[in-house]
Amino acid sequence: MHTGRAYLECLPREKAWELWHGKLEAAAYFADVPVELVPVVQSLGRVTATCIYAGQSVPHYNGAAMDGIAIRAQDTFGASETKPVHLTLLRNHEPFIPGGCYIVDTGDLLPAETNAVIMIEDVHIEDALAEIIAAATPWQHVRIIGEDIVVNEMVLPEHHVIRPPDVAALLAAGLETVEVISRPIVTVIPTGTELVPRAQDLKPGAILDVNSHMLCAAVTEWGGQGERHEIVPDDYEQIKQAVITSLKTSDMVITNAGTSAGTEDYTARILAELGELLVHGVAIKPGKPVVLAICNGKPVIGLPGYPVSAMLTAELFVRDILRERQKLPLPEVPVMQAVLARQLYSYVGVEEYVRVSIGKIQGKTVAAPLSRGAGILSSLIKAQGVLAVGAASPGLQAGAAVEVRLFDPQQPETVLAVGSHDLALDILGVFLKRQAGKLLTAANVGSMGGIMAIKNNEAHLAGVHMLDEKTGEYNIPFVNKYLPKGNWQLVRLAKREQGLMVLPGNPENIKGLADLVRKNITYVNRQRGSGTRMLLDYLLKKQGISAGDMDGYEKEVSTHMAVAATIKAGAADTGMGIRAAAQALGLEFIPISHECYDVILNFPPEDNAAEAIIGILQSAEFRQEVERLGGYDLTEAGTVMAVNTM
Amino acid sequence: MHTGRAYLECLPREKAWELWHGKLEAAAYFADVPVELVPVVQSLGRVTATCIYAGQSVPHYNGAAMDGIAIRAQDTFGASETKPVHLTLLRNHEPFIPGGCYIVDTGDLLPAETNAVIMIEDVHIEDALAEIIAAATPWQHVRIIGEDIVVNEMVLPEHHVIRPPDVAALLAAGLETVEVISRPIVTVIPTGTELVPRAQDLKPGAILDVNSHMLCAAVTEWGGQGERHEIVPDDYEQIKQAVITSLKTSDMVITNAGTSAGTEDYTARILAELGELLVHGVAIKPGKPVVLAICNGKPVIGLPGYPVSAMLTAELFVRDILRERQKLPLPEVPVMQAVLARQLYSYVGVEEYVRVSIGKIQGKTVAAPLSRGAGILSSLIKAQGVLAVGAASPGLQAGAAVEVRLFDPQQPETVLAVGSHDLALDILGVFLKRQAGKLLTAANVGSMGGIMAIKNNEAHLAGVHMLDEKTGEYNIPFVNKYLPKGNWQLVRLAKREQGLMVLPGNPENIKGLADLVRKNITYVNRQRGSGTRMLLDYLLKKQGISAGDMDGYEKEVSTHMAVAATIKAGAADTGMGIRAAAQALGLEFIPISHECYDVILNFPPEDNAAEAIIGILQSAEFRQEVERLGGYDLTEAGTVMAVNTM
Repeated sequence: MHTGRAYLECLPREKAWELWHGKLEAAAYFADVPVELVPVVQSLGRVTATCIYAGQSVPHYNGAAMDGIAIRAQDTFGASETKPVHLTLLRNHEPFIPGGCYIVDTGDLLPAETNAVIMIEDVHIEDALAEIIAAATPWQHVRIIGEDIVVNEMVLPEHHVIRPPDVAALLAAGLETVEVISRPIVTVIPTGTELVPRAQDLKPGAILDVNSHMLCAAVTEWGGQGERHEIVPDDYEQIKQAVITSLKTSDMVITNAGTSAGTEDYTARILAELGELLVHGVAIKPGKPVVLAICNGKPVIGLPGYPVSAMLTAELFVRDILRERQKLPLPEVPVMQAVLARQLYSYVGVEEYVRVSIGKIQGKTVAAPLSRGAGILSSLIKAQGVLAVGAASPGLQAGAAVEVRLFDPQQPETVLAVGSHDLALDILGVFLKRQAGKLLTAANVGSMGGIMAIKNNEAHLAGVHMLDEKTGEYNIPFVNKYLPKGNWQLVRLAKREQGLMVLPGNPENIKGLADLVRKNITYVNRQRGSGTRMLLDYLLKKQGISAGDMDGYEKEVSTHMAVAATIKAGAADTGMGIRAAAQALGLEFIPISHECYDVILNFPPEDNAAEAIIGILQSAEFRQEVERLGGYDLTEAGTVMAVNTM
Repeated sequence: MHTGRAYLECLPREKAWELWHGKLEAAAYFADVPVELVPVVQSLGRVTATCIYAGQSVPHYNGAAMDGIAIRAQDTFGASETKPVHLTLLRNHEPFIPGGCYIVDTGDLLPAETNAVIMIEDVHIEDALAEIIAAATPWQHVRIIGEDIVVNEMVLPEHHVIRPPDVAALLAAGLETVEVISRPIVTVIPTGTELVPRAQDLKPGAILDVNSHMLCAAVTEWGGQGERHEIVPDDYEQIKQAVITSLKTSDMVITNAGTSAGTEDYTARILAELGELLVHGVAIKPGKPVVLAICNGKPVIGLPGYPVSAMLTAELFVRDILRERQKLPLPEVPVMQAVLARQLYSYVGVEEYVRVSIGKIQGKTVAAPLSRGAGILSSLIKAQGVLAVGAASPGLQAGAAVEVRLFDPQQPETVLAVGSHDLALDILGVFLKRQAGKLLTAANVGSMGGIMAIKNNEAHLAGVHMLDEKTGEYNIPFVNKYLPKGNWQLVRLAKREQGLMVLPGNPENIKGLADLVRKNITYVNRQRGSGTRMLLDYLLKKQGISAGDMDGYEKEVSTHMAVAATIKAGAADTGMGIRAAAQALGLEFIPISHECYDVILNFPPEDNAAEAIIGILQSAEFRQEVERLGGYDLTEAGTVMAVNTM
């Protein structure tokens, strides 16, 4: 039952960070740092714990810096073209005699009593005599002991990240080991009775533990060593014991899930018992139910269970703590100014983080918001950056200037697709990267949203599949109506199958649309305005079937997968959608019609991207790849259906 | 003996690269790439070999997205505040009945026949009845199967670098392994009869093999797997066998040293025998004697022996080949515009790479060239970037606009020190980073060079130790004379000991300057204009000693270490210098005098760096640290000796 336990005061992010960082600093968490001795040859990327001083000089002897002859400089004084000096060639084992010289190669030890080298090019050797025509200065062409590094000199300062040449310098300075800051050990404890460790153990209602692996990987990326604890069920004592045990061997402990004020959320209570609970709840979305505590002088963090929330809060409250503990520089977050592709609503009082795709369109950089669900892992993968809507803001208008924090400072040239999504777009993206080095990023807002994005120059490409009821024509009437201006082309991508989905074995023996008005047949519909709904309505009219005679025509859901799920759950007998949705849930698929899925391309004439895309669509390779998915006909792929040049 | 074997035609860098890259491309080196299957949990940072498709939908069941009650939406139609609907609370194991509902927590499986969730906040529960006052829409607050990822959908494209959320998405999509591109194995073969593997085996004339470790570390940094071969002596057959053996197990082979046209340079001949020799000699400095070949379809590279040359040529001819083989993005090289701190001479016909320190001084970014010796490892460590002097250029004037390629895109605020160097400056740098987060970078050009750098606003700080013969005063007369304008302060750093260095046991029993005119005592002098020479001349004059009576007064060398090395080699009995030089070579040191080593600070008034530096110089902690070196007196450290505010 819901216990009604409340959050601690929900703090703004900055306040929560200040409290958190300040308390850790006061606990000397960044000052008392464990160190370890590692072999220099394994020290790449490690951070020096102290200043490192040379154990020997580099070079450690006086050596020839050139191929030539080693001589005593004073023997050559007065030599000139008109009055050459002749030196006696000595063998390597012979002792030096005044006026003598030795042949040396670069790097050779300078023979005793010599103090300069004359380059071989400047010497004429004949009959064991070397003739020279210019005086040498002492130590010319000699690498003197310590020329590079003098013994006891500082080779590397403290808190320096060791790079390849540093490895060489440490070794050259006679050091075989180096004291570095230990990698912080971070134990990640997945908690939840519903969690299972492996996909084969999954049953409906069970959740695969993926967060602990994601967080361990993030810890690795931030220089630490992630240790995954086994899954702990929602049991007060077991979670407490896991935290106590982990604290003994770790520099930081993360528990995942169990941090909201729900039925089985023990984290905050346990941490309050084991140490000082600093924060429970931060006014951010997603990620509000974060718990920050210090136990035994070590940070213990409860991260929320949804993966997007877990990742965001780890970035906000784990990353820089780990870096500071290791004396790693805090990287500057690269930011980019952009205009928002569409309106964003937001709650006042909560700072909201929205993942976005980015593209540069007709000279302006556009940020297209991705799905904001805290559970939508794929939004983490597709995003190129994140923008924060301030706590005081009720939202942002389309076209608003926003600052996007980039995940990668290096942004490849992107093609921003906004509109209706199709699996074929992912494949187009792969070909586009392969052939033109461009990244296709997609935000899914439906066909009409795509047309509007093209109209406002907020997308390079829009996937559309809209049927004109009057003409039975796809897409063309809509682009001509809504896009009177602009520099676009409408290009056929594929005809894709639409059909009726039914339970395996087709228990109601549905064969076509005529069956939808049969007694006892219930239907689940798509929402008004969707391409599938348009197609249904068109076909019903064409076949003279009255929607009013259907049971469930008014029952609307908003995705292909929701239709499939409704049928799978037994709440409807059939519904219309694409083959992939039926396949995903193991439903049977009765093909009814083809719809035309086209793309609108919006590039300035000087950009060769449109040409590249059309080339890909026309290629046999691409067609095969898409047709392999099933339910696609690419015969007309790459055909320009309509064009506008203002 | 010198054989006179010539280089192949020495190619410009771009030509060499084009030939090299083109031939590798033609050999399908970037197309036929080995792949391997790794566990997803170990795949961080790896590159996907192919597009990765989901093995299961995410979520894999319809689940509650909120804490609340699971209901059948149609049972709630018509509910309103005035006409609430009451649903019967069922237990989890009870089958659904129309008008029933179940309590669910976020993530719970949606019970059979229910298709929506009403948030607990919107429900009033009493006597096993749930009262609701608004109709629910189908699938509200439900995470529908495949909402995040649909089975068979593309999770990651090919050639994608796996990040922490990707790990989570792959696992969530039911994948336990992922096909990634194998890390290229690069075998590094150190060649040279003079090479030894460990510092304890070093004898004069022997060279410690540090390059192979540096190159293996660089390979690691570039995503490959460096395998160090044991040292191979300069023997034609042995080197050839090492290359043949390494080719069997490697994606690339690097031999190091043995690439110049000297006595024992077999690399080019061996590679021509084993495959196609493409390049022998590139018109760059340092690094000219690079060898590029393809053997068995694999790149084999001979890198020059000096560490700076080896690193530079590896960056030019190894790094991007390895990255392209792995389908890793080629990072953009961050560049910065700067003005050159001092004149640079260069050879026409050779592109020269010069390592530089960088600092922002009075609004302009200044690049100060570091030592250009190919053997000076420490220049690799101190540098923040490199600039290229084009092959057509005879050099660059001081103040010239240059483009610096940065080693790290993130440049901390720097204090650029140009002038006479002292070990105490390194320690000042450590304190400055600790206390003010600033990086001290130093270019050594002597005291006078430092004064000129301050005058031209090309340095923040200059170490100086210049004695005015007339007054016996240090530094003050010079700054007043040469720096009439500007906004500087002269601050005492230390008094440091100058003395006479002699062989251990002081065989000639030298006690002071008076001994320098004794019969049979030979002296080695510093060059005119150096601080040490000024001090000697001042002291000789003061003590009435005639330089003309000294044997060796005219024998000049240009560093402390060269003086020490001359004495150590027996070519002089004594010379003057600082204690550290004597210590480095195990010489005895007879203290003669103190000189004043001061720093000129050149910061705009609003910059608190000068204040921070003076604070550090005055601190007990800093003083102790420097005095620990021996030969330093810091009593007056931090005292402002002279000041100018225009």
